[in-house]
Amino acid sequence: MMLRSMYKFRQLAKNIQFLIESGSWPAHKKLPSLRAQAQSSGYSLMTVLNAYQELEAKGWIYTKQKSGYYVSGDINISPEHTNKVALNTNIEINSLVFDHLKRLQQDHVIPLGSAFPSVPLLCNTHFMKILSQHAKLPNSSLSTDSMPPGSLHLRQILASRYSLNGISTQPEDIVITSGALDALNLSLQALTKPGDFILLQQTIFYGAWQAAERLGLNVITIPEHPEHGFDVNAFESALKNYPIKVCWLMLNAHNPIGFTVSNEIKLVIAELLHRYKVYLIEDDVYQELFYEKQKPLSVKYFDKENYVLHCSSFSKILGAGVRVGWVHSRPFSNAIQHLQLMSTVSASNLMQHALVDFIGTHHYEKHLRQLRLKLQKNKNTYYKLLKEILPKSCKIYLYATGYFLWIQLPINVDSTVLYQHLLDKKIVIAPSILFQQDNLPRNYIRLNCSFNLTEPIKRALYTVVEMIKMLEQNAGADGS
Amino acid sequence: MMLRSMYKFRQLAKNIQFLIESGSWPAHKKLPSLRAQAQSSGYSLMTVLNAYQELEAKGWIYTKQKSGYYVSGDINISPEHTNKVALNTNIEINSLVFDHLKRLQQDHVIPLGSAFPSVPLLCNTHFMKILSQHAKLPNSSLSTDSMPPGSLHLRQILASRYSLNGISTQPEDIVITSGALDALNLSLQALTKPGDFILLQQTIFYGAWQAAERLGLNVITIPEHPEHGFDVNAFESALKNYPIKVCWLMLNAHNPIGFTVSNEIKLVIAELLHRYKVYLIEDDVYQELFYEKQKPLSVKYFDKENYVLHCSSFSKILGAGVRVGWVHSRPFSNAIQHLQLMSTVSASNLMQHALVDFIGTHHYEKHLRQLRLKLQKNKNTYYKLLKEILPKSCKIYLYATGYFLWIQLPINVDSTVLYQHLLDKKIVIAPSILFQQDNLPRNYIRLNCSFNLTEPIKRALYTVVEMIKMLEQNAGADGS
Repeated sequence: MMLRSMYKFRQLAKNIQFLIESGSWPAHKKLPSLRAQAQSSGYSLMTVLNAYQELEAKGWIYTKQKSGYYVSGDINISPEHTNKVALNTNIEINSLVFDHLKRLQQDHVIPLGSAFPSVPLLCNTHFMKILSQHAKLPNSSLSTDSMPPGSLHLRQILASRYSLNGISTQPEDIVITSGALDALNLSLQALTKPGDFILLQQTIFYGAWQAAERLGLNVITIPEHPEHGFDVNAFESALKNYPIKVCWLMLNAHNPIGFTVSNEIKLVIAELLHRYKVYLIEDDVYQELFYEKQKPLSVKYFDKENYVLHCSSFSKILGAGVRVGWVHSRPFSNAIQHLQLMSTVSASNLMQHALVDFIGTHHYEKHLRQLRLKLQKNKNTYYKLLKEILPKSCKIYLYATGYFLWIQLPINVDSTVLYQHLLDKKIVIAPSILFQQDNLPRNYIRLNCSFNLTEPIKRALYTVVEMIKMLEQNAGADGS
Repeated sequence: MMLRSMYKFRQLAKNIQFLIESGSWPAHKKLPSLRAQAQSSGYSLMTVLNAYQELEAKGWIYTKQKSGYYVSGDINISPEHTNKVALNTNIEINSLVFDHLKRLQQDHVIPLGSAFPSVPLLCNTHFMKILSQHAKLPNSSLSTDSMPPGSLHLRQILASRYSLNGISTQPEDIVITSGALDALNLSLQALTKPGDFILLQQTIFYGAWQAAERLGLNVITIPEHPEHGFDVNAFESALKNYPIKVCWLMLNAHNPIGFTVSNEIKLVIAELLHRYKVYLIEDDVYQELFYEKQKPLSVKYFDKENYVLHCSSFSKILGAGVRVGWVHSRPFSNAIQHLQLMSTVSASNLMQHALVDFIGTHHYEKHLRQLRLKLQKNKNTYYKLLKEILPKSCKIYLYATGYFLWIQLPINVDSTVLYQHLLDKKIVIAPSILFQQDNLPRNYIRLNCSFNLTEPIKRALYTVVEMIKMLEQNAGADGS
């Protein structure tokens, strides 16, 4: 008991130390009162007192008679911390995302901000035929024989696909979920309790921010590496300095930026996870959407100690309506099924049956090959057009995976303002604020390039570009 | 700020007072220390101190020098509290339920403990044909045009069905969810935060216990009324004496007991909700499974002030694989959609499209009529057989709704032991511990009577009865 509470106050002291080191709490800032700190952190008063005393003894904070505790003035703030790793408090991203998703649902909107690939491209007549046949069978369509962990046949097929990719897998390693978001959420819930620290990329799928907010977690972020996509130094520094329990990372066809991290870096990530005994929730929903010869590996491939929970789904290759995903994690299989049975219960029985039959045919691989070609073609077409018409002050990030283009706007153009202006023209884009906390520059947007470049979409792209130019000029005219 | 914290300590004092009144904290029991209480309750030390001082001033507790606070010895414990309303702490029902659901999934098991109706009875060829047709249409099967709040057509149909039943409803009042459990969970999550008090029936669908456990809620329970099913006096006493925010009740074809509460009592419930300003999550999944002429009303029918969130689904009438439910609550529609978009995302697009077409035909009403007849017939057949072969010391609860029989075993027979013994014989029943906290007598089981009474099921029922007799005799022989 004593040991446990000693550990607790050390942890709290460490957390506060990093708020100071990172510059979040500046010199001579007054610390929260003991009571306020105890209330907001959930620690006991005694733990808070011990933590403050430890910090005082170490010179991080000082006391003023009858007034309280203050941050010391003579601290060397490590430039590494101020520039790279950041602690994010008071996350509030839900209402933004909610508003955005609602806009995308409206009629006659050009959904360049959508996360879903174009339906006609995903649409596979063989799959739909199989689905249609299963719909007539009561055991497929109406029963629940695919309750957690999900259809054994489907798990067998997934296991052999993993094994073929060098990740030796048994059906028991896999839990089928209602899409990838369900897999990711259940994994995070199984691994954490409120107040735990998790690590995210600073620019990431908003679902990760939402989950962190909902579960009451502290979020440490690391920036993207300008060249490699993933900054291993920042990553190691975060693991070394913060009590991180879980990372949630996207390394293949990153949403929203689009990069795919090299296999060498993934190996290093796996080694660091093992060294620091930290779990990784690997969001790999775009794993099949690569356009070069070799399929990119996952960190799971390098993980021989079961620290990685690998999550993916069929939604990005067969349609968002499929809503069948999975998580690959033997040690947490039971915990995840527990949580699943009291929330999302199970993925669609009908879809699971149909997937088993479809993935077993040669039509599946053929579908993937054709989908890759079409998505790559559309992405390149968008890129060429945008390269031509965007002002030179913009930068387009082009990678050979996925179907997003991440575009850096002129520094004085706020993508949230751009977003608002374009809504009036029935065009929805995804501004960077959806993927980042609001302390970062806002001059980025994500465009979905999976749709065939029809005339209306072409016109929409021209409108986006004109609007960017207008905002850039206005900002210039304001003298900023 | 001051007001708020005054209110807080009054609330804590009230909660402790009821622990004492209810006999949970007996005379001369030592109270948790101020610090321990602050830590476990999440209240500040000051709030706890104020609450203890208030309780001391009122004579509920006393202090001993240097030792702490103790429960007073001369308190009149209200018999109403000891017998009826109960505060439930440390809820732990998940692993039991998980084990139970896993057993039901095993091959060659007689699933008398299942909550799902027999698949062949639900199976409707017209519905499956429509489903099969929609499966071929990309916009039905693969797209996501039914994102929250769900298909407009489906919400229109549901709204007119409500209106026909006297509950004037607009499509905007309804959010489509992934089954009823999703509707119930989202509703509870939208209405509460950890530490809030909710009210449940003491015997209730385990999903309610699981949700309370997961969300960190305090649960007040009221007992069933032996005659009317619902005890309005206990209900009012609970609302009057506890800071209850939300009730979660099942009043039609109650799971597991089976009773349906009269319309008169539902009216009183609605009036009490309005008087005490308490929300009701009304679990009405069995609303269509009534066997007398008149469809029972819901509390929602009597709720003119929007205090009721009415939840139901198609799973119990068309198949558990359908996984389409809904919640009817205009004021919380947005909050529920928020939570939905970051967790379960949306109910199956394909199923929503197919339901729209099916419910529009006369086949739907015909299906309901036939289903009712078949379920009623099977239930009566089971009842007649069991009435004949069960020992006289058992009591069967028979009601004209739903497909469960709730059976009271001899007082010395523990249904959990019966459950374990029957597992060896590949028979799964539902013991009362799945639906209640473990301070209640365990001599009850729930049987699912929706399956046609085939020879194997008949044999299983005989085995259940033999086992009950054996356990009764053994207990008698032990001298208990």
